[in-house]
Amino acid sequence: MNLILLEDEDFVDREHVRIAGRRFRHIIDIHRAREGDERKVGVVGGRIGQGRIIRLEKEFLEMEVALDLEPPRPLPVTVILALPRPKVMRRALYSLTVLGVKKVIVMNAARVEKSYWQTPYLEPLSVRRQLMLGLEQSGDTILPEVLLRPLFRPFVEDELPGLSQGTLAFAAHPIAAEPCPRDVRQPVTLAIGPEGGFVPFEIDALRAQGFSAVTMGPRIMNIEAAIPSLLARLF
Amino acid sequence: MNLILLEDEDFVDREHVRIAGRRFRHIIDIHRAREGDERKVGVVGGRIGQGRIIRLEKEFLEMEVALDLEPPRPLPVTVILALPRPKVMRRALYSLTVLGVKKVIVMNAARVEKSYWQTPYLEPLSVRRQLMLGLEQSGDTILPEVLLRPLFRPFVEDELPGLSQGTLAFAAHPIAAEPCPRDVRQPVTLAIGPEGGFVPFEIDALRAQGFSAVTMGPRIMNIEAAIPSLLARLF
Repeated sequence: MNLILLEDEDFVDREHVRIAGRRFRHIIDIHRAREGDERKVGVVGGRIGQGRIIRLEKEFLEMEVALDLEPPRPLPVTVILALPRPKVMRRALYSLTVLGVKKVIVMNAARVEKSYWQTPYLEPLSVRRQLMLGLEQSGDTILPEVLLRPLFRPFVEDELPGLSQGTLAFAAHPIAAEPCPRDVRQPVTLAIGPEGGFVPFEIDALRAQGFSAVTMGPRIMNIEAAIPSLLARLF
Repeated sequence: MNLILLEDEDFVDREHVRIAGRRFRHIIDIHRAREGDERKVGVVGGRIGQGRIIRLEKEFLEMEVALDLEPPRPLPVTVILALPRPKVMRRALYSLTVLGVKKVIVMNAARVEKSYWQTPYLEPLSVRRQLMLGLEQSGDTILPEVLLRPLFRPFVEDELPGLSQGTLAFAAHPIAAEPCPRDVRQPVTLAIGPEGGFVPFEIDALRAQGFSAVTMGPRIMNIEAAIPSLLARLF
């Protein structure tokens, strides 16, 4: 936890917060913080700054906070991710948040097992928990928007053109000929296939929407490695 | 499993292998392979190619193999990783292998908990298992060398100069001023700190050995995101 995320209900007044529960336990048990200690804080959806612990009780603490900085700039990217296995999905949401992605669309693909759509990890509270943990790790406050699109074709044909308009659009595809470009300095729409890759129909459908198939090299990456690799290459 | 790794003892003769156990079960249960199917294969430490299933029994299968390609080129990098939490360590070994790293040194640092050095995940068989799974994912055959260095100072002062000689040497450090360079096209020695980062003494010791502190941006990445990000930026 490199930043303590504050929510509106934590505020006692404009400059004071009271924190209990998980964050309190983490600050006490892991950080071993004491009265007078300073910690990086940030308001969900808002500014970041410093908090000084001014009161430490058995079940809560109070901080005086000064919020004078903007959160880090978002990556100018929409990531479209074919739903991976549930455990991988959970880590992907965390990782995308850590990396600064602010729009994630989880979509279907031929090689996505139907049962994956039933995972509790896609329930809003579970998704939000991963996003919050990702913000706490990276020191950010802006929650990504996560949309679920369980039908490939209507999504790609009807919704994607509007989404990708005015952006560079790439589909990560291990067997593509073109290497993923570097440091593009433009907004990007990035589609990442399932573990077995996109099927030809899907790559064709994405190409028809202006996507270029790009590769990170001869090795086939797992999703957890592919996401940070692609983003670090593009931005 | 994008490549079936073959070991010397699998070979019946130069062009035929017999496979049982975990790999056999994976080919049958996950790939649902049948007689006549082709699969990508590779010999541990050697060439890659195609294998055709010519016999399928209850507990084993036989393949005819043609090994006519070299494995993908290694990344020209030595990664020095401060030992993270055991579960993260296990995933890091897998991920480093997937990314094509062939030399990994696990070292100590002030913010590494001593108990981490006791984890069974550092035992040779457990390490090898992660490396093999990484090769199977990425389609490679060359096992990385993994060395453990549980004493920071002797390692950095006595061994590191020889290791990093003739390479660009970088220490990933979230609060560094210099961004991680792109596409360096030279051999690199890359040191990655523990989750809390290197302490000032460690950064100074690495600087004294010619390392530059570099950052991936304002967000503090977890190890799982930092490893692929740094490598994708550098190479």
